[in-house]
Parts: sequence; C-alpha cells; structure tokens
Amino acid sequence: MRVETRTLEFETRGNTQVLDITRRVAEAIRSAHLTRGIVSLFVPGSTGALTTMEHEPGAVEDLQGALERLFPRGAPYRHNHTGGDDNGHSHLRASLLGPSLTVPVEEGRMRLGTWQQIVFIDMDTRPRRREIVVQFIGE
Amino acid sequence: MRVETRTLEFETRGNTQVLDITRRVAEAIRSAHLTRGIVSLFVPGSTGALTTMEHEPGAVEDLQGALERLFPRGAPYRHNHTGGDDNGHSHLRASLLGPSLTVPVEEGRMRLGTWQQIVFIDMDTRPRRREIVVQFIGE
Amino acid sequence: MRVETRTLEFETRGNTQVLDITRRVAEAIRSAHLTRGIVSLFVPGSTGALTTMEHEPGAVEDLQGALERLFPRGAPYRHNHTGGDDNGHSHLRASLLGPSLTVPVEEGRMRLGTWQQIVFIDMDTRPRRREIVVQFIGE
Repeated sequence: MRVETRTLEFETRGNTQVLDITRRVAEAIRSAHLTRGIVSLFVPGSTGALTTMEHEPGAVEDLQGALERLFPRGAPYRHNHTGGDDNGHSHLRASLLGPSLTVPVEEGRMRLGTWQQIVFIDMDTRPRRREIVVQFIGE
Repeated sequence: MRVETRTLEFETRGNTQVLDITRRVAEAIRSAHLTRGIVSLFVPGSTGALTTMEHEPGAVEDLQGALERLFPRGAPYRHNHTGGDDNGHSHLRASLLGPSLTVPVEEGRMRLGTWQQIVFIDMDTRPRRREIVVQFIGE
Repeated sequence: MRVETRTLEFETRGNTQVLDITRRVAEAIRSAHLTRGIVSLFVPGSTGALTTMEHEPGAVEDLQGALERLFPRGAPYRHNHTGGDDNGHSHLRASLLGPSLTVPVEEGRMRLGTWQQIVFIDMDTRPRRREIVVQFIGE
C-alpha cells in the first residue's frame, strides 16, 4: 500500500468551461504503476468543481445552460459587493457541484462507465492557470 | 492495510428511482471482514448518482419532485437532439448529485446517522441492470 | 500506511448555518502527525452537508439565499406530512450538497486553495449538537 500524489495543470478559459480530464488522470495512474485502489481528485480553489458526465457537445451545453438558469451570472450577489468581484455565481456553482471526486481503480484502470468522463468545470469569469490534485491510495 | 473491491448489482426501474442500498454495502463490508477504513462507492455510468438521505416515502417523493422541478424531463435538451436520446435531464441530475460517495467505517460498521441511508438514484428513462463499485481501504 | 479517525463536535444554530471547520480539521491532522494521504470527512445525519467555499459573509449569504430559492422552506413537502416534521427542505438541501468530502494532504497540510475553506452546513430547523467524522488514510 502506498500514497502517490500528482498535480495536473490546465489552462482554462473560465466561464463554466467543461474540460474532459479523463485521459490526463489515466496517464497519471499509468505513470505511477498503480494497479488497484482509489484515485481521489481535488480542485484547490473555490470556483472550480469536479464531476462526471458524458462529455459530448450537447450534454456540455445542457449543463452550462442549467447552471446559468439555476445560478444566473447577472443576478445580484453579496459576494460581488463585498469583494469587488464579479464571480458570485461562480462560487455558488462550484460549492453545489463540489471540489472532490473519488474513483475506483482495478487492473490499472479506472472503473468508469463506457460513456462517462471525468470533467473539471472552471466557473470563474476569466482565463486561469489551474491545478487538480490527483492522489492515489492503493497498490 | 488492504484494498478490497466488490461490485454490487441492481435491477432498476429508472426514472429517478431511489434505491436504499445501505444493507447491501454493510453486507459487503462484513463479508470482507473490514474493521476500520473508508468505503468508497462509485457509479460507473453517467445517468446514476449516489448520496445519503432519510429513505422514507415522503422524502423520496420530495427528492424526485425537486429534481423534476429543477431539471424537467420535458424541457428541450441539446443532448436529446445530438444523440437521439431522451435522457438529457437524466445526465444533468446525475452530474449535479455526483457519482461518488465516501463513508467511514469503524468497528466493522459504517458511521451513518440513525436516519441516514445510502441511496443509489437511477435517473435513466428505462429499466436497467446497474453496477455499483464498493471499494474499501483499511484494516 | 495507517488509518486514524477523529470525531469533531459542533454546537450549531441550524437553519442553514454555514460553519468554517477548516481549522478544526487542520488541528486534527497535526495532532495525528499525518504527513501525506487523504482526509475523508463525513456528516452522520441526513440534514447536514459538507463542501468548500470562500467563507466570507457575502458568499455565505449568497449560498443561503440560493438554497432557499431552490428548496424553499415554506413549500409543501411530503416529508413534513408523513413524519410530522418541518424540515423537508433541509433533507433536500443536504442530499443535493452531499455528506462526504475528500481532501488531499501533503507535508502535513491540506492542499486547499488560498481562499477555500471547508464548510459544514447544518440545514436542520433547530440548534443541534453535531458530529463530523474525520478519517485519515496515509502516512
């Protein structure tokens, strides 16, 4: 049993961009020669989130549309007053989706569904350089 | 320290059916003789989700009602156009609730609240045979 | 590799109070002399949830406002009829946000963002004594 940690870096456009990071996570698992255990993913930051989905253009637009409908960018947010920010909606979207995800690994591969990808969603209102922490616990 | 993986199978009706899977997970823990560690649960698939709740008929109906209100089945979804599918709402519900859940185990038992059950929600629009991956890391 | 479990206790006011529990979790990690691994947090109970956010008064009000808008306290809930309870909205908010959170630890510290705090949100309708289970797996 061992712990292995990798940090993946991404250049994002923000504005609820939905990045498929499955391949990058799979490569990190291979390079660490992990065969079985859990992969725990985490976004260090309060305007990004992780989940899974079928990452095809239609479903991506649906998710962006639903987040805009439920937490509209143009609505009045206290956060935008107190901090001089414009990303109050980004914080809400990130907190609701959540910053952590845990995926089982067997025989060196994640047990994802056939049409299921791991996505990192950057809700912030500007392009950013982002990190995702990938931590394996297992054999 | 060791890793143990089990796959639980379920026949579901879909349409946001909410299955209480607590007993099945508890049995898997017992059969693996795990005493302390974490149980990491995962749905391989993009139209299912895991969370916890008080699994009584009223709260189940409330949850189904809220998901229908926030992500209506009848709304226009891009996913339904591009793929010829009818489950655009299922994908949104699953991504928002999330596919993974982690529960602590002590003295061979999950540290759940008295009225807290682990539920698997199948959002798809048809009956399916589903798997949940249960992975233990601990002693 | 080892497993360490701590239980943190909190007195809450309920009504979607948002408590910043970051310092308490960090102290638990220090006192257990954990240097690297995952911290898995869990709320035993069906009306509490864990996530991360920038814990400043404006963003806290925004989150409380969004939860009230999406799952209004005054709406009719089946749970309130069947159990004689008044916390149907609390259950929905808790299930959607989720009871578990996993955070990576390196060099004895959680890999949180600069303005990212771990929050426990108590959605119940009355003050309560609450527990959060903090479980480390690592070295």
